Amino acid sequence: MTTTYFTRLLAISLCLSGAVTAQEKKLLGYPENEAAQQLQLEDRFNKKLSSVHIGETIRSLSSRPHHVGSARGKAVAEDILQRFKSYGWDAEIVTYQVLFPTPKERVLELTGPVSYKAVLKEPALKEDATSGQDGQLPTYNCWSADGDVSGELVFVNYGLPDDYEYLARAGVDVRGKIVIAKYGRSWRGIKPKVAQEHGAIGCIIYSDPKDDGYYNGDVYPQGAFKNEYGVQRGSVMDMVIYPGDPLTPDIGATAAAKRLDRQAATNLLKIPVLPISYHDAAPLLRALDGPVVPEDWRGALPFTYHIGPGKAKVHLKLSFDWQIRPCYDVIAKLKGRELPDQWVIRGNHHDAWVNGAADPISGLAALLEEAKAIGELAREGYKPRRTLVYCAWDAEEPGLLGSTEWVEDHATELREKAVVYINSDSNGRGFLYASGSHALETLVNEVARDITDPQTQVSILARKQAADMVRATTPKLKKEKLARQTININAMGSGSDYSSFLQHLGVPSLDFGFGGEDAGGEYHSIYDSYDDYTRFKDPGFHYGVTLSQTAGHTALRIADAVTLPFDFRRLYETASGYVSELTELTANMREATAIENQLVKERKYLLAADTAKRLQPPALKDPVPYIDFSPLQNALITLDTITQALTAGKIIADKQQVNKAFYLAEQQLLNEKGLPSRPWYKHTLYAPGFYTGYGVKTIPGVREAIEQRRWTEATEQIQSAAAALNRLAAHLRTIVNI
Amino acid sequence: MTTTYFTRLLAISLCLSGAVTAQEKKLLGYPENEAAQQLQLEDRFNKKLSSVHIGETIRSLSSRPHHVGSARGKAVAEDILQRFKSYGWDAEIVTYQVLFPTPKERVLELTGPVSYKAVLKEPALKEDATSGQDGQLPTYNCWSADGDVSGELVFVNYGLPDDYEYLARAGVDVRGKIVIAKYGRSWRGIKPKVAQEHGAIGCIIYSDPKDDGYYNGDVYPQGAFKNEYGVQRGSVMDMVIYPGDPLTPDIGATAAAKRLDRQAATNLLKIPVLPISYHDAAPLLRALDGPVVPEDWRGALPFTYHIGPGKAKVHLKLSFDWQIRPCYDVIAKLKGRELPDQWVIRGNHHDAWVNGAADPISGLAALLEEAKAIGELAREGYKPRRTLVYCAWDAEEPGLLGSTEWVEDHATELREKAVVYINSDSNGRGFLYASGSHALETLVNEVARDITDPQTQVSILARKQAADMVRATTPKLKKEKLARQTININAMGSGSDYSSFLQHLGVPSLDFGFGGEDAGGEYHSIYDSYDDYTRFKDPGFHYGVTLSQTAGHTALRIADAVTLPFDFRRLYETASGYVSELTELTANMREATAIENQLVKERKYLLAADTAKRLQPPALKDPVPYIDFSPLQNALITLDTITQALTAGKIIADKQQVNKAFYLAEQQLLNEKGLPSRPWYKHTLYAPGFYTGYGVKTIPGVREAIEQRRWTEATEQIQSAAAALNRLAAHLRTIVNI
Repeated sequence: MTTTYFTRLLAISLCLSGAVTAQEKKLLGYPENEAAQQLQLEDRFNKKLSSVHIGETIRSLSSRPHHVGSARGKAVAEDILQRFKSYGWDAEIVTYQVLFPTPKERVLELTGPVSYKAVLKEPALKEDATSGQDGQLPTYNCWSADGDVSGELVFVNYGLPDDYEYLARAGVDVRGKIVIAKYGRSWRGIKPKVAQEHGAIGCIIYSDPKDDGYYNGDVYPQGAFKNEYGVQRGSVMDMVIYPGDPLTPDIGATAAAKRLDRQAATNLLKIPVLPISYHDAAPLLRALDGPVVPEDWRGALPFTYHIGPGKAKVHLKLSFDWQIRPCYDVIAKLKGRELPDQWVIRGNHHDAWVNGAADPISGLAALLEEAKAIGELAREGYKPRRTLVYCAWDAEEPGLLGSTEWVEDHATELREKAVVYINSDSNGRGFLYASGSHALETLVNEVARDITDPQTQVSILARKQAADMVRATTPKLKKEKLARQTININAMGSGSDYSSFLQHLGVPSLDFGFGGEDAGGEYHSIYDSYDDYTRFKDPGFHYGVTLSQTAGHTALRIADAVTLPFDFRRLYETASGYVSELTELTANMREATAIENQLVKERKYLLAADTAKRLQPPALKDPVPYIDFSPLQNALITLDTITQALTAGKIIADKQQVNKAFYLAEQQLLNEKGLPSRPWYKHTLYAPGFYTGYGVKTIPGVREAIEQRRWTEATEQIQSAAAALNRLAAHLRTIVNI
Repeated sequence: MTTTYFTRLLAISLCLSGAVTAQEKKLLGYPENEAAQQLQLEDRFNKKLSSVHIGETIRSLSSRPHHVGSARGKAVAEDILQRFKSYGWDAEIVTYQVLFPTPKERVLELTGPVSYKAVLKEPALKEDATSGQDGQLPTYNCWSADGDVSGELVFVNYGLPDDYEYLARAGVDVRGKIVIAKYGRSWRGIKPKVAQEHGAIGCIIYSDPKDDGYYNGDVYPQGAFKNEYGVQRGSVMDMVIYPGDPLTPDIGATAAAKRLDRQAATNLLKIPVLPISYHDAAPLLRALDGPVVPEDWRGALPFTYHIGPGKAKVHLKLSFDWQIRPCYDVIAKLKGRELPDQWVIRGNHHDAWVNGAADPISGLAALLEEAKAIGELAREGYKPRRTLVYCAWDAEEPGLLGSTEWVEDHATELREKAVVYINSDSNGRGFLYASGSHALETLVNEVARDITDPQTQVSILARKQAADMVRATTPKLKKEKLARQTININAMGSGSDYSSFLQHLGVPSLDFGFGGEDAGGEYHSIYDSYDDYTRFKDPGFHYGVTLSQTAGHTALRIADAVTLPFDFRRLYETASGYVSELTELTANMREATAIENQLVKERKYLLAADTAKRLQPPALKDPVPYIDFSPLQNALITLDTITQALTAGKIIADKQQVNKAFYLAEQQLLNEKGLPSRPWYKHTLYAPGFYTGYGVKTIPGVREAIEQRRWTEATEQIQSAAAALNRLAAHLRTIVNI
């Protein structure tokens, strides 16, 4: 296809899709005249955004390695502070003192049947100007334990519970052994946690080229994908217990805060963990013997993968400098003209593992561009109705430390004042990605409707919808998507700074980014650089502007709304969908358990097995009882009635009561006792999964109890979740007339 | 898991599954007293089978390369003849004169951007005693055209129609280019055919290590899988047009037969084709540029796969010796005592690409063991009620030549006398594989019920059922399998010698083999050797005995039956299932076409596409009309009634009329005009797919017309298939009382 042809096709598409962007411009929360005014404000805001300036910000802030605790990290925070001030914001640096280990010694060697000493180093490349700089953190997993261990090696696939179920069937026990797991399928911190649960004494995590390397595309610097020496750094704190400074759960890590002993921190590992490249992994994996791995364990290295254990033996020696270091959050405010004690909070972190052009500077640059534009609007006379709070967090990479400590430190104030938290992080070319509180889903649709995609010139809503339709896997799903005018936002798991706002405090939250056309292997490596970014992530920084528009319009619409743009009908529909999923999940598990148990008991697995492979039948599972979902179902009935009344406008309270009721509604969904075995997480609808990490579990108390077959707990958690929905209904009932 | 533990588990399983083998022993087609007698005969037959002797036969017949036309090939035929004679059979060699090209020159080289000359040679291995012998056919695809072509290289995935649809979207045209395709997903001959249809001037087929190499397991000689130099030889005759000698379609290739000019043979290619190893493929693929391939095109070689075309240029030069050569079929008979003109035919080919220990000698050795045992029974006084005809075919490998020519040559006689054809080919360790005419499904179940699996000591039926249950993909399907006491046999596509019997003449057919625990990469290579076989395919030759029992019992039960053991109810049920599939297929295509067209027309694909990748939206497809399936559905109603009456025993004819009606019933399913554009294939229920080759298409006239969107043809073919079912119903009606 020629460029001309493609351009023509796109041009045709523009004409046809004009209809989409020219739709009626009703704005939720705005009377008609104020809506027009707000849209004008957004136009003025847009005109102040500059892709060139965003590019300059990215270049400047990613020009040197700037992890938490480094001199350059502090300089970046001060640079950001100066920027906010120069834009006319009231800005300050808030400092916490957080634990942050950095490597002192890293040794990994294969000691048998042949010797190999791992390189553990990404080389500088002439095509990447910053790749040879001083001050780079070496490749490591932050929060690995100190350790000096030797043992037989076992390959555990992605290192997740299912993989250990298979290992048990294959008769492989990892106790006293060192495991090697692939990155992927879950957040990295789950892998050493599960390894430790199963008795492993050490854990190696590597990037398989099938998931992150030449299998996906040409490797860096020829292409964007991970080359053989690339390593993904990253935190392995057990963040699903609690994030933030491990020594100060629930409280701000101020200099004077009372700290736990490190040994008492329940989110720290006991075993050493090290991430390595596929160059370093290949000799280790090649040395393994034992059973050949099953089909879905296989990677793209050019040999047969075996499980071990056997002749392959490794020595892993790691030690760390466990220092308390300063963490610099930059907090900037623009006071609201009418409702200064209602805060619209916007944040993105500024610390990086190395240079971090994409992660986090691309998102931060968009945030700063918004602040600059809003500052200019303010100089021209604009004042937001509510207070805008723009934040640049430090120490996100080791475990959301900067944001979590600030939230914990300001919990009381935030419970009163926080209307919303709007997050971003890495940004790139492609499609809108939005997750968050579902009462904000309608707002996100309205915002996305009014922003133009820089490549196709249709709205980012229309482009996202098109992608959803085309990617739907069945004609039925495609039809459903086609019939709808809206997109869904995703539920929030973890992995960026919204976690403490939403899941600990119940502040309604959103997270925005663009991507899907920016794939690559630079994540948490020295190659996440300006050079890489401009070639592969967002050349021209056009999606930087689009992110500024998306997050900026959202912030301004909420800040200026007459009635806060919450739509609890969408929350109801979403929760209702989750409950349906849970009943279906339980029914499916019941059916599957019954049939699988029967197949095991009647020896069908034994007869179907290859007798030469000696794979044991699966273990019998306890039958799935019938579970009483009625408390949740009844709570939904009540919420249905009330949210219908809200949608119909049957409101009896005054504007300020309504606003307050709206933004405090999410807090009704918190369960003060938190989730079982992780009380820090209090939201009954959204949490990171205990065995997925970043990946969300919705109605997590119930869902994880069912998935992990704890039936009594499931029933208790149904009560907790139903109580939360009932609290929300009661809370909203105070403002409706039914 | 320890061996002891596993053995104990199996022992428990034996106790529990005794119930299965001790079931009532009713035999279809036998009065009670004769059933007991027949079972005794089978016991005596079993005792005469020897795994040691089967092993000796395999060693002896695979001791040297013995392809069609070779001196050793002739010697093998003569050896088999002597064996039959020594077993007391009346045996002869029937010779045909068939075209069989062998390579004169083979050159493949990469000429740019770097040079590489392909090895095209499998090395001898010290671990494989026969791998260095003289007389091996070089690696080649038989029926490639002569050619000397140079051009840009294009990677076409598996080289199937869908792949070219993707290439069109990517703007890649193969006209005037040389394509390289992976082995797999279809019969090999489809790949050059489709390449030729799209204008390619040459075709290379290679074994990707993901499909056939280190990705699957340790490579030969360490393990069973294909090493980097292994090459799959094989025919690329367009066998789905017609198999057999290309110069004598429809007639026997006797010395005097009238022959076509080679250019007039419609099943021969016009372009050169060569199979290569992944060692030879790697430099070619690595040299490609152009777009990165989509996910499901990726193989396991350690680099990024690109489509081309561009800088990679190849030169392919092939010439062949197009000789007419003798083809030696060995035919052995044991005359029936009561019904000598009813023939129970059993066959397996004897020619191999090289040594062929597995393919075909493992199946042939089982057949010879049956003949030996039956010969001994005959010496002890046994005479079958019907005539047994045991056949060892030559020239199967280049395209079923030996069997096809014999069938075409004896068509008139076979239409009168052939009661059944029972085929086998390669055999190995594992589970029963059975395909064939569905009127014989009940018989297969009864036979399988009475044969013991050598590894688990349950019946081969119970073991196959267990595998079906465990491998079923959903709890619902598992439940269904668990609720049934029977297994289904597969429909026949092509790939072995049953094709002319079933699909050209309408002789009821069966094909048996064991496998699933014998995976490896030796197929059609020099490593299909006795050494490989005894390590990886059927160590101890126990499944050789099991195959002898399976095919032998089947032959004897049919030969001795009072009433032939056909069960047309199963044929009805199967045909009814096919018709349901077709209506569902059409409805699904209609829905999918409508939604896909809408997505294309509304530019959703364009908006969802990565603008940097320039992948065009799919082409619009013509809408799927509503199709009148009522002729088929009404024919099924009639057949339902008649087969119910048969099952209920409402038979009015005498035994001999019934027998004759039964074995001639399958011929009623032939359409004398054959399938559209391939009149040789006359069966309306079963044919090899036009674009799958070995893979079957059921009710092929209708199914392929729908799949290929030829709606008028679909309606015509519904009439033809319905007419066939009506003929069958009318034919059976003559013997039932309704």
